[in-house]
Amino acid sequence: MSLFQPVALEHASRLVNHGPTVLVTSRSADGTRRNVMAAAWSMPVEFTPPRIAIVIDKHTFTRELVSDSGAFGICIPGVSLCDLTYAVGSSTGRETDKFIRYGIEATPGPTLGVPLIEAGCAAWLECRLIPEPHAQDAYDTCFGEVLAAAADTRVFERGRWSFRDGRGHSVSEPE
Amino acid sequence: MSLFQPVALEHASRLVNHGPTVLVTSRSADGTRRNVMAAAWSMPVEFTPPRIAIVIDKHTFTRELVSDSGAFGICIPGVSLCDLTYAVGSSTGRETDKFIRYGIEATPGPTLGVPLIEAGCAAWLECRLIPEPHAQDAYDTCFGEVLAAAADTRVFERGRWSFRDGRGHSVSEPE
Repeated sequence: MSLFQPVALEHASRLVNHGPTVLVTSRSADGTRRNVMAAAWSMPVEFTPPRIAIVIDKHTFTRELVSDSGAFGICIPGVSLCDLTYAVGSSTGRETDKFIRYGIEATPGPTLGVPLIEAGCAAWLECRLIPEPHAQDAYDTCFGEVLAAAADTRVFERGRWSFRDGRGHSVSEPE
Repeated sequence: MSLFQPVALEHASRLVNHGPTVLVTSRSADGTRRNVMAAAWSMPVEFTPPRIAIVIDKHTFTRELVSDSGAFGICIPGVSLCDLTYAVGSSTGRETDKFIRYGIEATPGPTLGVPLIEAGCAAWLECRLIPEPHAQDAYDTCFGEVLAAAADTRVFERGRWSFRDGRGHSVSEPE
C-alpha cells in the first residue's frame, strides 16, 4: 500500500529545496524504453509555476529519452536506496532495463506517464521538459515544469517535511 | 589567522555538490557598493571548467551588482552562521551595507576582488558571471565560471571534505 499523497504544486519546490541527490526517471515517447539514473545536480528555479533545473549529461541514455518524450521524473531516495542510487548512477540503461535489473517497481506518473519510484523514496515530481536548446547544449542544464508531485505522508505532510519521532527512518521500512 | 587554503579548480564543484544553502556576495564594478544575500538554489553544472548555476531573483540588489560587475562570490556558511544566513536572506542591502550592519568581515577575492567571507564559512568560490540573458531573464538563473576557490583546511583538504574527529564543528569556533 502506497503512503504517497499528492503535494500541492506551490509546495513542490520544498521537496528538492534541501539539495538532495535524486533519481531521474524517463521513458521513450512510445513507452517501449525507460531508464533511471542518479543526479546530484538539481535545484528549483521558481515557486509558481514550479520549475526546476537539473543537469543531465548529453551523452546519457536518460538525456536521449527526455529529449524524445519531453518529460522526466525526479524521485527522492531515502537512505535504504543509497546503494541502489549509486548503482543506477554507475551503469548505463542503454543495453539493460535498470528497473528490471535492480528490481525497481515503477508507477506511471498521473500527467505524463513517466515511470516513478515510490518504494524507498520520500517523494517524486513529474516534470515536463521546457525546451531550452542553448542551456541544454552549453550547460547540460534541463529546465522542467512540475506538473504533479507526491510525497510519503510519513515524512511530508501539509506542505512540510517532518522527521519527528524517528519518522524519517520509516521511509526505509517495508510498508 | 585564516585557515583557508586554495582549492584546485577541478575540485571546486565538490564544495557545493551537497546542495548547501550559501551566501552570495557581490560588489559594484566601481567597488563603492557591496552586498551579501542567502541562496538555497544553486548547483554545479560542469567539472572542468568549473561552472555553477545559481538562482538570483532579478529584483534583488545582488542581481543588480552582479550584472554591473560581472562577478559574484559563493560562500558556504557553517552552523555558527545559521542566524546570520537567515538575517542577510531576509533584508535588502540596497539601503544598508549588510557587511557593516552585521559585522561581517570581507576579504577581496584574488581574481575579481569580490568580497568573500571566511570567518564562520567552510569555503568560498569566486565566480565570473557567464552572460546568459535568456536564462537570467526567464529563470533568474545565473551561470558562473569559478576562477578561484578556497576552503578551511580543518574540514576540506586535498580535494575532500572531512568531518572526522569533530572537525566540522571547528568551523564555528574562533580561530
